[in-house]
Amino acid sequence: MDKFELNILGCGSATTSMRHMPTSQVLNIRDNLFMIDCGEAAQLGMLRQRLKFARLNHIFISHLHGDHCFGLPGLLSTLDLHGRSGALTIHINAEGAKHFGDFFNFFLKGSSYNIQFNVIGTRKAVIYEDDAITVTALPLKHRVPTMGFLFEEKPKLRHVNGEMARFHNVPLHMYNNLRQGKDFVTPEGNTVPNSLLTTAADPSISYAYCSDTAFSPRLVSMLHQPTWIYHEATYADEYAKLAKQRGHSTASQAATVAAQTGAKNLILGHYSKRYTDEQPLLLEAQQHFGGRVLLANEGMKIDLTK
Amino acid sequence: MDKFELNILGCGSATTSMRHMPTSQVLNIRDNLFMIDCGEAAQLGMLRQRLKFARLNHIFISHLHGDHCFGLPGLLSTLDLHGRSGALTIHINAEGAKHFGDFFNFFLKGSSYNIQFNVIGTRKAVIYEDDAITVTALPLKHRVPTMGFLFEEKPKLRHVNGEMARFHNVPLHMYNNLRQGKDFVTPEGNTVPNSLLTTAADPSISYAYCSDTAFSPRLVSMLHQPTWIYHEATYADEYAKLAKQRGHSTASQAATVAAQTGAKNLILGHYSKRYTDEQPLLLEAQQHFGGRVLLANEGMKIDLTK
Repeated sequence: MDKFELNILGCGSATTSMRHMPTSQVLNIRDNLFMIDCGEAAQLGMLRQRLKFARLNHIFISHLHGDHCFGLPGLLSTLDLHGRSGALTIHINAEGAKHFGDFFNFFLKGSSYNIQFNVIGTRKAVIYEDDAITVTALPLKHRVPTMGFLFEEKPKLRHVNGEMARFHNVPLHMYNNLRQGKDFVTPEGNTVPNSLLTTAADPSISYAYCSDTAFSPRLVSMLHQPTWIYHEATYADEYAKLAKQRGHSTASQAATVAAQTGAKNLILGHYSKRYTDEQPLLLEAQQHFGGRVLLANEGMKIDLTK
Repeated sequence: MDKFELNILGCGSATTSMRHMPTSQVLNIRDNLFMIDCGEAAQLGMLRQRLKFARLNHIFISHLHGDHCFGLPGLLSTLDLHGRSGALTIHINAEGAKHFGDFFNFFLKGSSYNIQFNVIGTRKAVIYEDDAITVTALPLKHRVPTMGFLFEEKPKLRHVNGEMARFHNVPLHMYNNLRQGKDFVTPEGNTVPNSLLTTAADPSISYAYCSDTAFSPRLVSMLHQPTWIYHEATYADEYAKLAKQRGHSTASQAATVAAQTGAKNLILGHYSKRYTDEQPLLLEAQQHFGGRVLLANEGMKIDLTK
């Protein structure tokens, strides 16, 4: 299976504590690093998890609350000190592009590399695509404009069954056709169906990042059986009212979203500072979702292919 | 003795490492906190050293390199989340006031408290004064305009010798006169000299913060026997040339400044990332300075009265 790994650099909420760092994650997809949100000291999290700065080319910022973006100045400055040359793309809303743009133009004047802003709007839209994946921005429901991000692997190639291909004398240069699902036609004009020559492609992994957000039926309608969903769970049920007021979710609501979208796995995070033990959040979530539920924690590396 | 304590939150240099945090310190003078420089995650250092955010009213920024100021957004945001009401003063140069001002006006819109910028120039000047101390900004020698800060306690009051004062029938309401050094005149018109009624005041402590800077004879000429000097020592002697190029100092140069100013105690910091053990810096400094030399480290709390 191709590498598709999630690194949790921070999973606390806005108020700084010694228990959790503010929000930041790094997806490692086939050794390309994609950062999602960049709370203060995210660069330190990268060092601690031995994630290479040089492999980071895209940063996605969900919204402009400080606990999701105040690590940008330090990280971008460090990339300059490392002598980075390739451009870095920051996917962020228009106000973020303006404010961080001004800031960086001053503090990184004469930088070794360029920053490109990909300005994201407030509607569902594909905002990034390469050979392997697409990234779709999804509107969340928070106190300020906030977007979630759905990372989806494109359909993968089928596996050639070498023994069968040799038996039918398929020339090597036609293996790519087999991987793409095509049948093989022999020089004599006989058709060997693809299903005899290949086995199924690996499943395509999808990962939906949903933070910060109140419970959102609209979000549910936009997600269809993601392999993994990360959903904020700032509070337990007892603070459901506060969660709603603050544009946040309870663990039960996070699990309900996961269940209703048909997700296979759920990761909880963005814990309120009031919790010195997040087990109650896990237990509440498990009441509403039958799949696997993980509590995010700093330093976790989660293999999303398993 | 009145409290005069230095807390080291970070003493690394620009390139982030897992060994040191970027520069930040907090002086605790009689339970008023004064922050000097604010590298990324300085607020976390405050939490770790149990320094109360509510007691912090002044932040002094030496220069606008990220490793000395990128902790400001997070710290100021946290003060807002804590519902701070009193104004906070940031002593910073004009460009810093502009850029952090713009940034904070956007990210802390509707904040619970106000930020005041005290714009500091490039010449030696008293930039802050209260009943207990004065703070003087001192030009350093770096790649960008950089100021050091000299914190000086004002002369203190003499101690009344209670036994002698009672023997001479000094009324209680006149004790303050004694503390200020005045003689006592009896109702009969006899003068009792102050030296009979009091003992000497505690010494006034002074602390000079000098980072970042190349070796600077001009700085030496502006400091007269400070009790303590913190001087950057980015490199050992072997990198003297690099130090000069980069506007930094070696440990020997830091110690030479301390010796030439007649300082009593020296603290070294702002170590290059290349050192995984700073003992060689200490040893080199001790060749040039006979007083006490300390290696700064995160979490240190130094009683400057001792």
